[in-house]
Formats: sequence, C-alpha cells, structure tokens
Amino acid sequence: MDYNAFFVSALDQLRHERRYRVFADLERIAGRFPHAYWHAPEGKREVVIWCSNDYLGMAQHPQVIGAMVDVAARMGTGAGGTRNIAGTNHPLVELERELADLHGKEAALVFTSGYVSNQTGIPTIAKLLPNCLILSDALNHNSMIEGVRQSGCDKVIWRHNDLGHLEELLKAADPDRPKIILFESLYSMDGDVAPLHAICDLADKYNAMTYVDEVHAVGMYGPRGGGVTERDKAAHRINVIEGTLAKAFGCLGGYIAGSAAMIDAVRSYAPGFIFTTALPPAICAAATAAIRHLKTSQWERDRHQDRAARVKAVLTAAGLPVMPSDTHIVPVLVADPEKVKIATDMLLEDHGIYIQPINYPTVPRGLERLRITPSPYHDDVLIDRLAEALVDVWERLQLPKNRQALAAE
Amino acid sequence: MDYNAFFVSALDQLRHERRYRVFADLERIAGRFPHAYWHAPEGKREVVIWCSNDYLGMAQHPQVIGAMVDVAARMGTGAGGTRNIAGTNHPLVELERELADLHGKEAALVFTSGYVSNQTGIPTIAKLLPNCLILSDALNHNSMIEGVRQSGCDKVIWRHNDLGHLEELLKAADPDRPKIILFESLYSMDGDVAPLHAICDLADKYNAMTYVDEVHAVGMYGPRGGGVTERDKAAHRINVIEGTLAKAFGCLGGYIAGSAAMIDAVRSYAPGFIFTTALPPAICAAATAAIRHLKTSQWERDRHQDRAARVKAVLTAAGLPVMPSDTHIVPVLVADPEKVKIATDMLLEDHGIYIQPINYPTVPRGLERLRITPSPYHDDVLIDRLAEALVDVWERLQLPKNRQALAAE
Repeated sequence: MDYNAFFVSALDQLRHERRYRVFADLERIAGRFPHAYWHAPEGKREVVIWCSNDYLGMAQHPQVIGAMVDVAARMGTGAGGTRNIAGTNHPLVELERELADLHGKEAALVFTSGYVSNQTGIPTIAKLLPNCLILSDALNHNSMIEGVRQSGCDKVIWRHNDLGHLEELLKAADPDRPKIILFESLYSMDGDVAPLHAICDLADKYNAMTYVDEVHAVGMYGPRGGGVTERDKAAHRINVIEGTLAKAFGCLGGYIAGSAAMIDAVRSYAPGFIFTTALPPAICAAATAAIRHLKTSQWERDRHQDRAARVKAVLTAAGLPVMPSDTHIVPVLVADPEKVKIATDMLLEDHGIYIQPINYPTVPRGLERLRITPSPYHDDVLIDRLAEALVDVWERLQLPKNRQALAAE
Repeated sequence: MDYNAFFVSALDQLRHERRYRVFADLERIAGRFPHAYWHAPEGKREVVIWCSNDYLGMAQHPQVIGAMVDVAARMGTGAGGTRNIAGTNHPLVELERELADLHGKEAALVFTSGYVSNQTGIPTIAKLLPNCLILSDALNHNSMIEGVRQSGCDKVIWRHNDLGHLEELLKAADPDRPKIILFESLYSMDGDVAPLHAICDLADKYNAMTYVDEVHAVGMYGPRGGGVTERDKAAHRINVIEGTLAKAFGCLGGYIAGSAAMIDAVRSYAPGFIFTTALPPAICAAATAAIRHLKTSQWERDRHQDRAARVKAVLTAAGLPVMPSDTHIVPVLVADPEKVKIATDMLLEDHGIYIQPINYPTVPRGLERLRITPSPYHDDVLIDRLAEALVDVWERLQLPKNRQALAAE
C-alpha cells in the first residue's frame, strides 16, 4: 500500500482550498521587540511583527530574561521527569502559588501548555461529576472543544455570548444534573468580551459550575493582571479560571486555578498532566517574574490599550475595514481566502511587516482577515508605516474599504 | 449542588486505594547532578536523585545550559505565538532539521511534549488513512493509548512483544485495509526492548505502517544517539519515529520524524500542534546543543551502561529483588502498594535518597516497585550508599529479598 499517497493527497486538498499554511522563519531580537529577523528564502531581513501573542512584550523584559538565565545556570535546562518522577521543581511550586494568588483562588496547577490545560482539565473535571452536562459557547477555542469531546459528556452549544439562549438551555436541563458553563472571557479573533456577571447569575440560578478561559486576558486586564474576571470583579464567582503563561506573560505553559480540592483532583486524575514532563524550572521562574512584574506595573497595560486605540483610529481614518472590537485585538476584514494570503505576502516582502493570514477554520469562510495585535512597543512611526503599507496593499489588490470611507469617496 | 464534594470524594477514593500521590519539592543543582535540594516540610535538605529521566544528566551540561542562556538573552523567553502566529522561530527550524538528520528521515516536527506528539500525532496520521486499523502493543504508554482513543479508529491490542499474536491479528485483518503497528522501542517500567526487525518483517509482509515510540532510548542508544532503531540498524524500516527532548536530551518537548509528506500532513492537520504556542527558542537551542553533543560523544552512553550494570550487580549481590532488565532501567520489586510508599519515604527522610514509588496504574497491581535510573554521574560511592540504604529499608519493612539470596540464607 502506498501510504505516502494518502498524505500527499491530504496536502493537495488543503492547497486546493487555499488553506495550505507556510510558516515564516522568524528570529526575535530581545530588547528590540517588535523588530525581528525573517529568514527569507533569499537571506536574513529585518521585519516588524504585528501579530505576536507576546502581547505586552514581556518575553524580552530584562527581569523575565534574567530569571530564566539565572535559574537555567543554577538548576539546569530541564525538569528531568514528570511531576511525580522527580519533576516537581521548586520554581514550579512557587509559580503555582503565585498563580493562585493572582486569581484569589486556593490553588493552581500548571500544565505544559494552555492547550493541554483545557484538553485535559475540562474532561477530568467533567468526568468526576456524575452525568455532567457541558454548556459550551459556540466560539470556544479548539482546545476547549477537544476537552469537551474527550470528556464523552453530553454537551449543548449556546450561541456566542447569547444569554437568552444559555438560559433556555439551562432551564431545559434536569435541575439535579451537574452542569459546567464553559466560555472565554475574551475571544481572540473578534476581540469581544463575555458578560461575566450575567453568566454567573445564570450559573447561580441554575446551579452550574463556571469554567472560563482567560488566555487572551491574563496580564492585560485587571489592576493586577488577573484578567477580565479581575477587572469586572467576578473572579470569586468563577469556579475554574484557565490561563496561559505563553502570551502576556511571555513564556510557555498553561494553568487552571480554583478550589484546593478541585485542583488536587485534577492533579491526581488528569492523564495529560500525570504522564508528561514538568515545565523546566527556568521557564517557571521566568513566568513568575513576569506575573510579579505585571501585578504592580500598570504601564504595560495602559500603553497597550493606548496603542490598540491608536491603531484602530489610524487604520479607520485611512479607510481600512477595521472590524469592531472592544479590546486590544484589531481585526481587519479581507473576506477572501486567496487575497488574504497574497496581502500578507505583499506586506512581508514589500513592506517588511509580518502579519499572518487568518483563514477558515479559525474564522468562518467569508470572514478571512488580518489580525493585528499592537503591543506597548509599537510606536507612532510604526503605526503610520503599517497604515501606509495596508493602504498600498488594499489598493493593489482592490480590496474593499470601510463603508464610511467608501461613502466619502 | 455541592460541586466540591465530588472532588473531595474522588480524592478520598485515591487515599483509600493507597494511590494518592505526594510530589517532592526538589531543586536541582546544575554542576552537581544527581545532587539536589529537597524542600522538606521542616526545611531545605540535600538529597541524591535516583529516579530522574534526565538519564544522561544533559540538563546540566555546560553546552546545553550555555545554548539556553545565550538564546534567551538574544531572543527572549517565549516564542510569542503558535507556529502560524509568529511562533516559528529560527532555533526551532534548526532543531527540526537536526532531528530529521538524527533519525535519517526527510523531516521532523516538534511538539510541546512527547505526550502531545503521541496524543495528536497518532490520531492525525490514523485519520488520514481511510478505515485505518491500529495494532497496539499491550504495554504502550498512556499518551499512545490516548492517541489511539482519540483517533476513533478500530484498534486491536497485541500481547506485549508477542510476535505470534501480532501476526495472528495482522493475518485476520483485511489485506487492503490501511494498518499501523504501534509500539515502543524500550519500555520504561520493565526496561525491555521490542524486536524491531521482526516487527518490521511482519509490517512488510502484511503491508502495515510502523510507528515506534523511542522516548526512553533517543540519545542513549545507537552510535549517534538515534535510539534503539539506530542501534539495531532498523530506522530506515520504520515509518514514524517518535521521541522526546525532555529525557536524555535534558530539555522539554517531543517530536515525530518520517517522510516529508507525512510530517507536512501532521503539521497541517493536527489540532494539538496547530493551536498551541511554539516551544521557546531558548529551549530549542538547548535541545539542539544536547543532540549535537550526543551525536559525537560516546562517553555518556558508555558510562550510562556501565553505571546501570554496576547498580544491578551491587543490588543483586546485596540480596535485593532486582527485576530482569535489558537496559539502563533498574526495577526493584516491592509488590505492595502501601510498603512501596513507606519505603520511598524512609529512603528520602532517613537516607536522603529520592526514588518515587511506582504504583498501579503505571504498573499492574502486585508489581509495585522502585524504578531506579542510574546516570553517568552516579559514582561508586553513591551506588554503595544506595545499596546500604535499600538493605536497611528492606530489613525494617521485612520486604522479600531475591530468590538466590533467599536460597543462600
């Protein structure tokens, strides 16, 4: 049997649907974020990154790099085993304490990624609840969908952020049945936010647990970086807060925070936690340094919001179709799977600007877009250059401008 | 509803079965491996680790630490996004090239852990093959079992390393159906090895793909550290070699290596790869340094085998029930779930020796054991102290000694 032919044909299928992805080979430059080198086919060139999830540039913060370097030199590069097999390292124990404190919870548990936190955390919690029903927001991330699928529990999908629909589904369910309401605080492709208190009111009314994914919010919202749950003073009403160390905290790994018994049960029962090597001590120390810094430093958060607002204003004024967003995410609509790829190639090759195309299945077909993530380190000059580059590409590809701009023309 | 009560009762259940695990809070000391600090309840104490999966002590190797420190300082701590969202970093591209070369394959793909490699790699490959049948060794690791489960494909389990049974199952299957034979090269709880060529002969005869997990072998076997597949000159006969960067290579992460089309298809279709942040550049650079060092340095491998042989000889001479093992793994039978935990507590508290208990479900009930992993850095004095400590514990707990020793008494 020609096994390779199956793989070749699967790849042809992606190319046919214009969904074949090419990864840009980048080299970040500590101290000069968002500048980076792009290892292009014809050689190394300097570019500006406009789509990093290192939202606050913490991966280059001297305290964060310092913690990583210091602990790597003192304790070595790897943890050396699973948490049980000699892998529980002191910086990891400290990191979990720091995270519990960040969210005002009794305990926290660290995983090797945010993806794994959801993928193994959700089914482990759900399976410990007899005959559990999961109520999942329609736009939840793939890692949450996988977690639900792996739980084998019954699930119902509520229309995105639609409280009426959520209540309808809660009302229809057996009152004595354990339930988990699963949602994100901040949805990263559209940049909109969940109505936390209203969801918690429904959870109280219908006796459900709440599990919220805060990966695109921790570090960036709330006076100590505790996320939207902290900003909206709702953290105490949420049973499980899931977050990441890989975005605003600039490192790698994910976690859940909640009651001591719940965390201990996940620690004891989750296969994706038990059977995997612990995070390296140097990564844990770096993450702890980032969290501690952002607990007291408001500069990054203020500057981040200021930059996002400026990008939205400048691009909108230039007639570009900026999609509405309540947060630091700036989506710009292209609405064409082929042109979105060509646009990003032009930006990179002709303007030295790196933004990756967002295509189906990450967003629905017809809503293909650029997803721009301004950081505190994108200054006015970079923003103006971004706008000029986009206008150039929009004109060359004859992409639609926004309605106001079209009306004014 | 009292949700917490469900979690409390799940924990009670584990305590009742003597399976509740307590993680030791350890602090490795770079340059002094296998010595470490144990953050005991009453304060920090120095201990010797005898159960690390940092099998060759590479996590403390100056070149490996040097690479991590250098790249963290130059490029920062985190990758900043998924592979597609600005997360593909140059050290990661170089690491994948290094891994493909290590195994003599066209390409390799890095995941955030070995667990994830199997969990997302196996189902992605299997689902791309129409109506695939998976033939899985009975002792495969939890990550492989989860991968098979998530594929949704039909599976049959062959008795551990039983070629007759494997052939029987292959013969019974439709010849035109795609098949994957799934196994490990080196099983880490018993330390035995799979008959690679005989399995490949069956794969050829019945037209099946082969997928082998080499996580406990890469770095340690084969003239360049390519694993048992390299040692036995079978790598070219295997379709997918899966390995880890977190054990002999001393870092974090996992990978698969194989044909360019297969790797590209997994890269393009695997949710657990697509939707997760890339490994930090500093981790990738450290792993590459470890792999490169072990491609040419034979000292670690020779010394590792020498130390394992010496531990087996010394413990056996002391009358301890060393279980038969062909490799660097030294299992010592306790055969009691409660006493295995008490034994390890005594070793840690009274002798400053850290070995974690191995209990059900990691091994079958009745085969509870200590799993000792000598490294190149465990010298004769440490081995003698280990033997004395074990004899002391064996006498205090009245644990069974080995048959030869019992016969001689």
